[in-house]
Amino acid sequence: NDVIDKHTQAGLDLLERYIKFVKERTEIEQNYAKQLRNMTKKYSKRGSKEEQECKFSNHASFQEILNELGDYAGQRELIAENMTANISDKLTKYLQDLKQERKTHLSDVKKAQQNLESSFKHLESIKKRFAKEWAEADKATQQAEKLESDNNNSKIDVDKAKNHALARMRTAEECRNSYAAELQKYNKEQNYFYYTEIPQIFNKLQDMDERRIRQLAEGYCQFSHIEKNVLPIISKCLEGIAAAGTKIDEKK
Amino acid sequence: NDVIDKHTQAGLDLLERYIKFVKERTEIEQNYAKQLRNMTKKYSKRGSKEEQECKFSNHASFQEILNELGDYAGQRELIAENMTANISDKLTKYLQDLKQERKTHLSDVKKAQQNLESSFKHLESIKKRFAKEWAEADKATQQAEKLESDNNNSKIDVDKAKNHALARMRTAEECRNSYAAELQKYNKEQNYFYYTEIPQIFNKLQDMDERRIRQLAEGYCQFSHIEKNVLPIISKCLEGIAAAGTKIDEKK
Repeated sequence: NDVIDKHTQAGLDLLERYIKFVKERTEIEQNYAKQLRNMTKKYSKRGSKEEQECKFSNHASFQEILNELGDYAGQRELIAENMTANISDKLTKYLQDLKQERKTHLSDVKKAQQNLESSFKHLESIKKRFAKEWAEADKATQQAEKLESDNNNSKIDVDKAKNHALARMRTAEECRNSYAAELQKYNKEQNYFYYTEIPQIFNKLQDMDERRIRQLAEGYCQFSHIEKNVLPIISKCLEGIAAAGTKIDEKK
Repeated sequence: NDVIDKHTQAGLDLLERYIKFVKERTEIEQNYAKQLRNMTKKYSKRGSKEEQECKFSNHASFQEILNELGDYAGQRELIAENMTANISDKLTKYLQDLKQERKTHLSDVKKAQQNLESSFKHLESIKKRFAKEWAEADKATQQAEKLESDNNNSKIDVDKAKNHALARMRTAEECRNSYAAELQKYNKEQNYFYYTEIPQIFNKLQDMDERRIRQLAEGYCQFSHIEKNVLPIISKCLEGIAAAGTKIDEKK
């Protein structure tokens, strides 16, 4: 029970840690993109003097490289955006739901435990009352027998004592029946608790943990796919840069 | 001339600007790699408590992702290193050589100009001397003629004046020959300057500029190739991350 509590908590902790990790990666990616973009702007924005020089292919090519690097920075920004939307935001919402669900399941366990405990206490009190009644009935019976064997007493007193002992014995037997019934009821409850109720909740918790792991696995895969998806465009930017370098005609 | 000076200077400025640009990109790349590496370490280095949890596949997979991201950071570091070695360092050395070469060529132009100027000055001084001697010879001739037409003078005086005038005229003619020779020499020098010397130096400067552009173009291409070369390994890292996500068994 305590083990399940700890295990599911560790699972949620890992999910939380992964979300934090992805957020940090996102910040690094944003920062990287921003630095690339600023550098691109810094080297691009030049006065009309530079524009004049752009008729020379080696100047024009540098400008093209800057343009491609701007696109490149845009792709890194896209990675950051998609990581936020497809991992962090999604998993954060999911984590909240799981926390709530886990809380509900664990409180169900506690409630069931409390119910069984209060049933047990009730059984104990009935058992105690039965023991007490039984002892009193036993005592009344002994007293009646003692009165009878002692010849000094009147028949009326002896009969009165006998009747009293019988009445007590009847009450004690009622208590015994009541205890037997309550014990049977408690055993049923206990069976239900250990073989039905708790396993059901534990199954739900396990199901929840499996869903958590699937979502986390999906988050792991997304971490790769988001970046993989921009690789062709990044490749194209790099080709554009190489093309800008290649087409320079030094004779011009 | 001044145009060539400015054009080659603008070329070297572009080269210098490109080196600065690559250095900045290198710093951004180093910074990016460092941030990724620090994050990887931060999430990897955990106590023995976490190691225990690693028996669960979703914990182990996160560790694998961190390992792959560490390799990824290593590839970004490699980009930075190669940009420094194959672009910045190379082009910086090359820029120094070109600056020196350009300086030599431009000083050769200046030297040739100064030579031609001093030849011109020399020619002018010879021309001036010829004009002066010619004027004096003319004056001596007129004086001799005046002495002769004036009957009051002795024949000896007249002959003396005539001889003097002849001597002056001979000197003036020598000066004229010397001037003519010098003028011819100067014309030859001027021709050499405009049709041989200067074109040769300009060809060298143009050749230098073409070499500069080829090197710069190579630097542009390297900027792309260095990153393109690590793309397959980066792709592999991303596949490793996706594999870590995929192989999670939620039933464990």
